[in-house]
Formats: sequence, C-alpha cells, structure tokens
Amino acid sequence: MELWFTEKQTEHFGITAKVRETLVREQTQYQDLAIIDTLEFGRMLVLDDMVMTTEKDEFVYHEMLAHPALATHPNPRRVLVVGGGDGGVIREVLKHPDVEKAVLVDIDGKVIEYSKRFLPGIAGALDDPRVEVLVNDGYMHIHDHKNEYDVIMVDSTEPVGPAVQLFTRGFYQGIYEALREDGIFVAQTDNPWFKAELIKSVNRDVREVFPIVRVYTANIPTYPSGMWTFTMGSKKYDPLEVEESAIPEMDTKYYSPRLHRACFVLPKFVEDLLK
Amino acid sequence: MELWFTEKQTEHFGITAKVRETLVREQTQYQDLAIIDTLEFGRMLVLDDMVMTTEKDEFVYHEMLAHPALATHPNPRRVLVVGGGDGGVIREVLKHPDVEKAVLVDIDGKVIEYSKRFLPGIAGALDDPRVEVLVNDGYMHIHDHKNEYDVIMVDSTEPVGPAVQLFTRGFYQGIYEALREDGIFVAQTDNPWFKAELIKSVNRDVREVFPIVRVYTANIPTYPSGMWTFTMGSKKYDPLEVEESAIPEMDTKYYSPRLHRACFVLPKFVEDLLK
Repeated sequence: MELWFTEKQTEHFGITAKVRETLVREQTQYQDLAIIDTLEFGRMLVLDDMVMTTEKDEFVYHEMLAHPALATHPNPRRVLVVGGGDGGVIREVLKHPDVEKAVLVDIDGKVIEYSKRFLPGIAGALDDPRVEVLVNDGYMHIHDHKNEYDVIMVDSTEPVGPAVQLFTRGFYQGIYEALREDGIFVAQTDNPWFKAELIKSVNRDVREVFPIVRVYTANIPTYPSGMWTFTMGSKKYDPLEVEESAIPEMDTKYYSPRLHRACFVLPKFVEDLLK
Repeated sequence: MELWFTEKQTEHFGITAKVRETLVREQTQYQDLAIIDTLEFGRMLVLDDMVMTTEKDEFVYHEMLAHPALATHPNPRRVLVVGGGDGGVIREVLKHPDVEKAVLVDIDGKVIEYSKRFLPGIAGALDDPRVEVLVNDGYMHIHDHKNEYDVIMVDSTEPVGPAVQLFTRGFYQGIYEALREDGIFVAQTDNPWFKAELIKSVNRDVREVFPIVRVYTANIPTYPSGMWTFTMGSKKYDPLEVEESAIPEMDTKYYSPRLHRACFVLPKFVEDLLK
C-alpha cells in the first residue's frame, strides 16, 4: 500500500508527500497534531493539516525567523518566542553569542512534548539551561510583561485556530510594550502568492505600531508557493543599516552575513503589495 | 467529478492542481505535450508530465531568464533563445530597448503552435517583426553560428528527452563560440533541493568554458522546491558590477533594478554547492 499525505495549500492546489509511517496523530486541546515520516522530507510536523516543519527544510524557516532580527539588535540578551513549540527557533536563538535568556511560550504543550520525542534534532535546544519553556497563551504573556524583551519572535501557525489573535493590531501593540525601548519584533507572515491580502493588512497594522517596518523573504519548499515572508517591526534599529562585517558567521545553512541585506530586496509584485 | 493533475517532482513528492479542462494532449515527435486549465494557476503547459509554465506564475521564470543577462550586457542587439517555444522569454527580451533581433530555436514546432493558440498572453510576442522563429535542433544551430549573438538564453526542459544534450560541456563550448567577443550566456539550471548534483556539474562545466560564472535564484511556485537557479556565463561583463541606476525600469512584475544584484546572493547551502 502506498500512503500519501496531501496538504491542500489552497482550495485548488496542494503538495503531496509519500509517507513511511505515522508516528503520532492526536486531537489536542487546540488543534489536530500529527507527526509523519515522509520519504522526501523526513519527519514532518503537521498541525490542522498544514505542514509546520520537516527535518529536511526546517533550517530555512528557523534560521530566517531568528537571525535577521538578532543581527540587527546590537545586544539581544533577552528573547521571547511566541509559539514555536517544536523548538527550532529557540535552537537558532541560542546560536547567537549575546543571548542570555530565551523564553518560549506555546499554548499547546503537546506540540512541545511530541517534538521533543520525535523531532529531537529540532526540539533538543528546549532543554538548554538558558531556556524557559512556558505552556501558556502568548497573547496573555505579552500583555503581562512590559519593557522586558530585546527581541520578540512570533512563530505561529497561519491565522486559523489558536493563532487568529496573533495577527491583530492589539497583539502588535502588546508586543511593542513588552519590548524594551530599542526592541525588535519579527513574525512569519505567510506568502504573497495566495495570501496577498493578509500580508497587506499585517503590514498596515505593524506600521501603525512600529516606526521601522521591513519585510524579507526566504525559500521554504514545503510551505505554500515556496516563498515565505517575514515582517520585522523595530523601535530603533534598521536591519538595512547593518554592515555585513558586523554580523558573526554562525553555524547556519541558509542565513549568512552576505544574505542579511539581500533577503530584504523583494520581487516587484511584493514591493507593490506593500505600497 | 474532480480532476486533479499531479506532478511527481521527485519519486516521493509532488504538487497537485485541480483541473477545469484539458485543452490539448498530444504525443509530439519529441515529447508528451499537454495544456490544461487549472483553477489555481490558470492555463498550464505540461511537457513529459512536468509543469513548464502557467499563466499565473510564468512572469517570474521568463523575466528572470531574460533580464539579468540583458541588463549586464551594455548593448544586447542580437539575442538567441534555445528552447522556449512558448514565447515567454522572447516577450521579455523584446522589452529591452536595445534588442534589434531575437531568434527562437525550438526543436518542437508543436509547442510553438499550441502555445500561440492556447497561451496567447505568453506566445503573442512570437509574431513581432523583430523575432525569427526556427523549428530546429538548438544544438545544431549553435554549432552552425559563430561570433554572432550578444546574448544566448537556454530555456530548456530538465535534462530528460530532447534536452539532455543542452546540459553538456560541448554545448556550452558551442555557445561560447556562437557568442560575440563580449557575449553572455544564461540557462535555467534546476533547483538545489532535489538536483544538487546537476547544479554542481553544470557549474563545473560552465566554469571550464567562461571566465565569469554567476548563479542566481528566483521563486517559482509551480517548479520543484519553489526556488529555481539560473547560471550565467560571461566573456567580459560581470553582472555584479552593474549599477542599479544603469538598469532601465521596465514593465516587469518580478525583476527590478533593485533586485538585480540581490538575486545573486545565495543561501549558504547553495553557496556551498558551488564551492
């Protein structure tokens, strides 16, 4: 028997991957969670039928959510990750030499539990002594902390289910207040081919809160369209003013000092979306 | 009844698109040709079961094969396109103000015929008076013309079927000789996620022929991994030395003067492939 997992990325288009076995499938308190072992991309975390991460291409998303902001802040000591229970962003955050403390707040403890068990190469960093893991509502955590973090990263699912409130102006305002006076915020903000309106509205909302707003992209094969956007809001530092020579060469596979400024140069149709 | 077209991009991974209708399906002398109408990407040209182009995302591939080389050459008057019978690259070539003559050589006249009929927005430029269309073997055409073209673009399928000989050192040597003394060559060279060895061997071969070799990428949602590479071989001009201000702003949707140098900055794992 051949088993194939198909994600309908839109109503009329999808990706399909041959599956060796299903490692876990569970309806958690918040979402439908599965980890499957695929022949092309290795183990794959799937939430509400959407591919969240795979062993083969996870490094792109995790590096590209973490490093552009960390390289922009001159001294990122305290970092918060909202969502991201698989631990991949935390692993990247800990590569930065300045980071003293990284807090992870994911609403779904099952994502953390099963990622540790079945995706140790991604989730292993959650056991680092610099990391505090909280199973909690990220929206509430943000609103309970003021002037505390240097960098806040939002590693959410798409705006369905528990992630809906993470795509609101009120959330961005809360993040602004949870950041120190020179803090930086970054979030994954979906793709411009199928979700142009979402990117536009997020961009508009973040601009109302942060004085410096920049969008960059990365190629993620298992995400819709293969091109993912990230939106950065900054109180003081502009990522485009960071010198390549000031960025440490780290143990990465996608991000590099050379890529730092180039990833902010957008295709024309994406530039036009943000006008 | 729901009809879905699935391309297995690798043995274990693919894309799937809902189909409204099949407009043409024919075994030509060279390949299995189909044009289908999909709900997400519009009309789609499929050769030997591989998506060649779609109405929704075709602009990326066609602009990005044509414009980086045209912007690098200070006066590209005579341009040759090998393959590309759908006419999309020719359409982009004609946007450049210096081009006086564009020659298209595709081995399969049926691709040209059906593209004109079913993909007029892409193939319409083939009727321009500056264009000469030849139904012929590109490999032979290259070897019959010496010192004639300013820019040669290879718009081939992947190296299966008739395109195998377009991925050989002998072909690149022929292109070198068909170019004028300051000519530039560019080819689509597949993706680094599933075809790393191909990119490495093409890069090695082109380096043996051309003194300046540069690789750049673009995001194409319907191509495997969503990230496509292009390899440029140049006798004299380096695309990285082109000033943004020297590039004309044209009627494009992906390429722009701002993107010209940024598209050559590669993710670290792709840099490593080319070392």
